[in-house]
Amino acid sequence: MFSSKAEQLPGKGLIFIGTYAHSLEPVQITIEKGILAVLNGVIVAAEKSPGDIACIKQKFPEVEWEKVELQSGQFLCPGFIDLHVHAPQFPNAGLGYDMPLLEWLQKYTYPCEQKYSDVNHAKYVYKSVVEKMLSCGTTTACYFGTIHRESTLELAKAVALAGQRAFIGKVNMNFGCPENYSESLEESLEETKKFIDGVLELKNSLVKPIITPRFAVTCDSKLMTGLSKLAEANSLHIQTHISENTSEVEFVKELFHGKNYTDVYDQAGLLTNRTLLAHGIYLSDSELELIRERGCTVVHCPNSNVSLKSGICKVRRLQKHTVNVGLGTDVSGGYSASMLNCMRSAIDASIVTFFPDSESSPLTYNEVFYMATSGAAKEEISSFNANDSLTDSEIIQKFIYTGDDRNIIAVYVDGVQVKTGLKSSQ
Amino acid sequence: MFSSKAEQLPGKGLIFIGTYAHSLEPVQITIEKGILAVLNGVIVAAEKSPGDIACIKQKFPEVEWEKVELQSGQFLCPGFIDLHVHAPQFPNAGLGYDMPLLEWLQKYTYPCEQKYSDVNHAKYVYKSVVEKMLSCGTTTACYFGTIHRESTLELAKAVALAGQRAFIGKVNMNFGCPENYSESLEESLEETKKFIDGVLELKNSLVKPIITPRFAVTCDSKLMTGLSKLAEANSLHIQTHISENTSEVEFVKELFHGKNYTDVYDQAGLLTNRTLLAHGIYLSDSELELIRERGCTVVHCPNSNVSLKSGICKVRRLQKHTVNVGLGTDVSGGYSASMLNCMRSAIDASIVTFFPDSESSPLTYNEVFYMATSGAAKEEISSFNANDSLTDSEIIQKFIYTGDDRNIIAVYVDGVQVKTGLKSSQ
Repeated sequence: MFSSKAEQLPGKGLIFIGTYAHSLEPVQITIEKGILAVLNGVIVAAEKSPGDIACIKQKFPEVEWEKVELQSGQFLCPGFIDLHVHAPQFPNAGLGYDMPLLEWLQKYTYPCEQKYSDVNHAKYVYKSVVEKMLSCGTTTACYFGTIHRESTLELAKAVALAGQRAFIGKVNMNFGCPENYSESLEESLEETKKFIDGVLELKNSLVKPIITPRFAVTCDSKLMTGLSKLAEANSLHIQTHISENTSEVEFVKELFHGKNYTDVYDQAGLLTNRTLLAHGIYLSDSELELIRERGCTVVHCPNSNVSLKSGICKVRRLQKHTVNVGLGTDVSGGYSASMLNCMRSAIDASIVTFFPDSESSPLTYNEVFYMATSGAAKEEISSFNANDSLTDSEIIQKFIYTGDDRNIIAVYVDGVQVKTGLKSSQ
Repeated sequence: MFSSKAEQLPGKGLIFIGTYAHSLEPVQITIEKGILAVLNGVIVAAEKSPGDIACIKQKFPEVEWEKVELQSGQFLCPGFIDLHVHAPQFPNAGLGYDMPLLEWLQKYTYPCEQKYSDVNHAKYVYKSVVEKMLSCGTTTACYFGTIHRESTLELAKAVALAGQRAFIGKVNMNFGCPENYSESLEESLEETKKFIDGVLELKNSLVKPIITPRFAVTCDSKLMTGLSKLAEANSLHIQTHISENTSEVEFVKELFHGKNYTDVYDQAGLLTNRTLLAHGIYLSDSELELIRERGCTVVHCPNSNVSLKSGICKVRRLQKHTVNVGLGTDVSGGYSASMLNCMRSAIDASIVTFFPDSESSPLTYNEVFYMATSGAAKEEISSFNANDSLTDSEIIQKFIYTGDDRNIIAVYVDGVQVKTGLKSSQ
């Protein structure tokens, strides 16, 4: 039931005819015309002329091909990758941005997440969350759930059923939490083990568990160390928050006897080349060096950072330290689930730091497209790969700046269509 | 043919039953429940109980009433007022933001506007521009057209036909313009007179001409003085650009022998209490004082200012000088025609100036709602007016942060429905 939809369709292939755009490096989006053939979620051929369909059919004689012809003005591009998003917080998007992070967590976020102690509530909300994400073209997401194992498993099931690719995390927090929204150390580790097993039991190649200590403010050292061991033992990715807000950074220092945020995580063994660190606004040079050495990815969440008045992450500075940077919507710290909005916010954030500091150039639409697609994932995502580059990039410029989910007509994950039927409005 | 639609329907009234939100001052959005009765574009009754319909019917026995019942979660609010938008530039939205203002004008904007020498092109584009604006809930707009009188008259006709409320300006420029996109002094004044007559001949109470010198970079003193006299003689509003970009500010100083931007306009007589000045990012204290004395409104265009890397207008500073501030999308300097996007951008812009300068508090969603509705217009717009205030503002918070045109189900101008049929998606 929860196996990948592509795996359920052996012998069925898809041929796309038309324009496709991809980005293998941040400098330029490559726009090409031709044919792409997809079989079981893998691009098996990229040809330049519609006549080449015959060659493809000859090469795979046993396959039944479905043709998708793109119209003029339409293009195919890699799905978006949202590296940081809180699925349970979707009902709160757009609420409470008049308060700072730690206060907002207490007043809005924790009460919202507590409701997921009810599995039916989780089932109901998560179904629409995944639908919304796919409708926005997000084919891969790194989701925070809540501390509730069963409810977060419902998120994994919703993702599997809808055919999205995702990393799903049961949140861990045993420290400094609200009374009705906390776990003990033992409970947290035990439930996480069970959660990992639960996700693996879905036997869906697109859906994976991810170790998710909320942040150093709500996890003690023992919990973080225990979680890093679980990650290691099961070869799992890790996701958490880091250095989002000045008060939070100070608070972590207080809690951990003067150690900085990065060292706290490093000593617990959480910094690996499979670790996603959300925000990273106030990291010192030495912290950035350590993060680079460990090979972690920093997830830039520009909409959230401005909405919650956290500050602005200087992406150019991270790049100078050769730290890998991806993008996240951070719903509901960010109000929009759309990676198009996230890309525009990333450009805006880089421009406003450019005004007082014109030495570093703002991010371009080429760069944020790269960050939102192939640049986000180090190895997970296969991009398109072909040769003839077209000079006209204006169509994709307009899409990035003025598009919304209505301009995303169809979405495919692993070769399977997961969104269809909407007409383009622009 | 071009008279107001409301005037075409004597004896027809509308009764809205449900929640309505309005804002008579920036501090708080007032949300109320009850009945609003609209007759010929004017709110003639605001009652608190559905039972009061009988009283309304009794008070206006000759009127045929149509009832509109709002569902739970829906609310009625004043239409949005876009004080600065370039109708001809809509096809360019989302393009060319990698270049600075003056270069962008030469490479993208002027060539786009030149196409409106063809009246058929104008007819085709302006119809969709007005549809798009109404679909975003913009019931009042201050449009820049192009220098072409007939094409800009087509914009006025499109507005009149669609039932929007608007100020339409034939753009004036006789100086420092591209070869094929300029006028002589005489031509500019003569065509403007004819344009005014043309708009007045439409005899539509909602559509008015507005005097529109592009900016001091493309108008010499004689033209600006001539235009200010035309404005005075015909009691017209005036719209132009001011102090958007540092190079432009320097250039104006060069062109006008060291005079600052505000003085240049003042000496030409362009600064009146009916003048809209777009941008105003780099105005000095003395310029702001003069603008306040003259009673002009500064139009804040936050999306454009960031997209074109112009800078950030500090709205709190303008407010300190008690200068009236409204909002504009500035399409295509801004990429979005939606005033909801504009409101969010205004909040964002105020937050990013707040980071280094935490003395001035960021704008709130209450304040931008006020700026986008009743606060924008000094006298043009009638707002709602009733008493019982509800405490829950979360529904409107979500609308401001997460809404788009799909969340705007119906739009009324002057009591006439100008958008209908779309279902809410959120």
